[in-house]
Amino acid sequence: MSGRLDELQARLLDGDRRALSRVLSWVENGDARGREMLRRLYPRSGRARIIGLTGSPGAGKSTVTNEFAKVCRARGLSVGIVAVDPSSPYTQGAILGDRVRMAELHADRGVFIRSLASRGALGGLSAATQDVVHVLDAYGKDVVLIETVGAGQDEVEIASTAQTTVLVNTPNMGDDVQTLKAGIMEIADVLAVNKADLPGVDRMVSALKALLSLAPDRDWQPPITPLVATKSEGVEQLVDACEAHHAHLVETGRLADAESARARQQIVALARGRVLANLLNEIGEERLSQLSTAVASRSTDPHSAAEAWVGGE
Amino acid sequence: MSGRLDELQARLLDGDRRALSRVLSWVENGDARGREMLRRLYPRSGRARIIGLTGSPGAGKSTVTNEFAKVCRARGLSVGIVAVDPSSPYTQGAILGDRVRMAELHADRGVFIRSLASRGALGGLSAATQDVVHVLDAYGKDVVLIETVGAGQDEVEIASTAQTTVLVNTPNMGDDVQTLKAGIMEIADVLAVNKADLPGVDRMVSALKALLSLAPDRDWQPPITPLVATKSEGVEQLVDACEAHHAHLVETGRLADAESARARQQIVALARGRVLANLLNEIGEERLSQLSTAVASRSTDPHSAAEAWVGGE
Repeated sequence: MSGRLDELQARLLDGDRRALSRVLSWVENGDARGREMLRRLYPRSGRARIIGLTGSPGAGKSTVTNEFAKVCRARGLSVGIVAVDPSSPYTQGAILGDRVRMAELHADRGVFIRSLASRGALGGLSAATQDVVHVLDAYGKDVVLIETVGAGQDEVEIASTAQTTVLVNTPNMGDDVQTLKAGIMEIADVLAVNKADLPGVDRMVSALKALLSLAPDRDWQPPITPLVATKSEGVEQLVDACEAHHAHLVETGRLADAESARARQQIVALARGRVLANLLNEIGEERLSQLSTAVASRSTDPHSAAEAWVGGE
Repeated sequence: MSGRLDELQARLLDGDRRALSRVLSWVENGDARGREMLRRLYPRSGRARIIGLTGSPGAGKSTVTNEFAKVCRARGLSVGIVAVDPSSPYTQGAILGDRVRMAELHADRGVFIRSLASRGALGGLSAATQDVVHVLDAYGKDVVLIETVGAGQDEVEIASTAQTTVLVNTPNMGDDVQTLKAGIMEIADVLAVNKADLPGVDRMVSALKALLSLAPDRDWQPPITPLVATKSEGVEQLVDACEAHHAHLVETGRLADAESARARQQIVALARGRVLANLLNEIGEERLSQLSTAVASRSTDPHSAAEAWVGGE
């Protein structure tokens, strides 16, 4: 077994895409071999630029990610893309568009794309995403793009594992303050305004500026970059803005702090996942069903049931 | 202390809104008095209709919730509204619109509105939301509406704690398959198409029908209800659709099963929260920082660090 992993490791580090795919599958599924490969590969990670792209549904994140990757490729950088998509029966089938949209990039050997939908891994989707990023980083990708769907807390957490986070907005959301809520403005390092050929782009830029002015003083003022991803317009500027943010992190010494914070977040998520797995093993299905039924029938309450299971705080 | 809680409990059950507010604050903040009050009040819960309203930012969920509440009031039902909003410095301040939008309902003593933004509670936002719903239920609300912002996994989890989940769409999302992803279609019991005076409503209804036809056979076919919440049009039909779903749950005996599933979800979340709190207490800040630094500097990997902390699986 160890010999096979040695060989797989050598092939992966030699750029073999099939070896990479196999390791990523293990990692996503929480396979023990995945953890062993991570242990081996992790020391080789830490060199890639990790850039998160997030924003509301409909903002065109996939197209922006696609164009971002093309600009990176034109600059001679290899690219990994991790598209995070909470598991849905629908997305498995007819509706999954990410791969289709990225068909052009698929043909480029310098790009590796992975759709990450598994929620089964220890520590949840956020920890699994970090593992996948670390493997792509160790594999030698210069840039790893993390595209997250939606604007929930999970997505915020995933985006915050990136060194630089791009929030993708569109002009037709300009009226709608809701799109800028959900904790996402605080983690944005660069504000992209996609579909900038639509009316309302100036109003959207103004709204973003107004929002930024409400923020507590920060030493990095997120730049606002309009673009039309479908026409490849403005993408160079977006990539430049991300570069500028990275330079800022290096200059201020923040990159190391951020790396520790990310490590901490993943360690806690993994520890929580391990403990929960142990808990569920210990209690057994029957006892948990009994507790659930007791709570549902109001013969006990949820907190007392949890305490009966794991003890007091 | 117990005497004070006795008095507070009596006042709450007598309909005192200030007593209710105090208990909800304790519950949200994870205060031990909140858990004690929940233990006392929980046996009195289980009577309210719990309806979740979710959907993408910009769909007009707050307006729909508002109008839904008005229709319930006109039918003689008391209403509790829980607006779930992941904590954001921005939403605390100038941008928070929920309360403003609901000013009219605020004047109605038959309506109680609570914005829930705390993420500090044990078991996370989902468990805290359930606690708040249980208190409003015990307080005597006939209907509790849970409005969730955004479309992330957290929101899906919260929405799934409702007996009936309404997914709010709009016509101008018709082109955008992304809005219907993120695992939300599966949990929708009723599909509302808000802003049905905009062009594209027929196309949106067709798209939803096509999506539903992809779903595995279910014994409940989610109705599609167009409405214009800002003009109070179609809201009666939406409320009726939710009533019909509830009747279906009762007829098929699913209500009890769903209640057990919800109880189970909350027990697991609370158990996980308790265990994590214990873990963080045990390890101490210094040791966790050491592990994080070790991972950040690549002298160990995240999984090995988690294992060093909590042991193997």
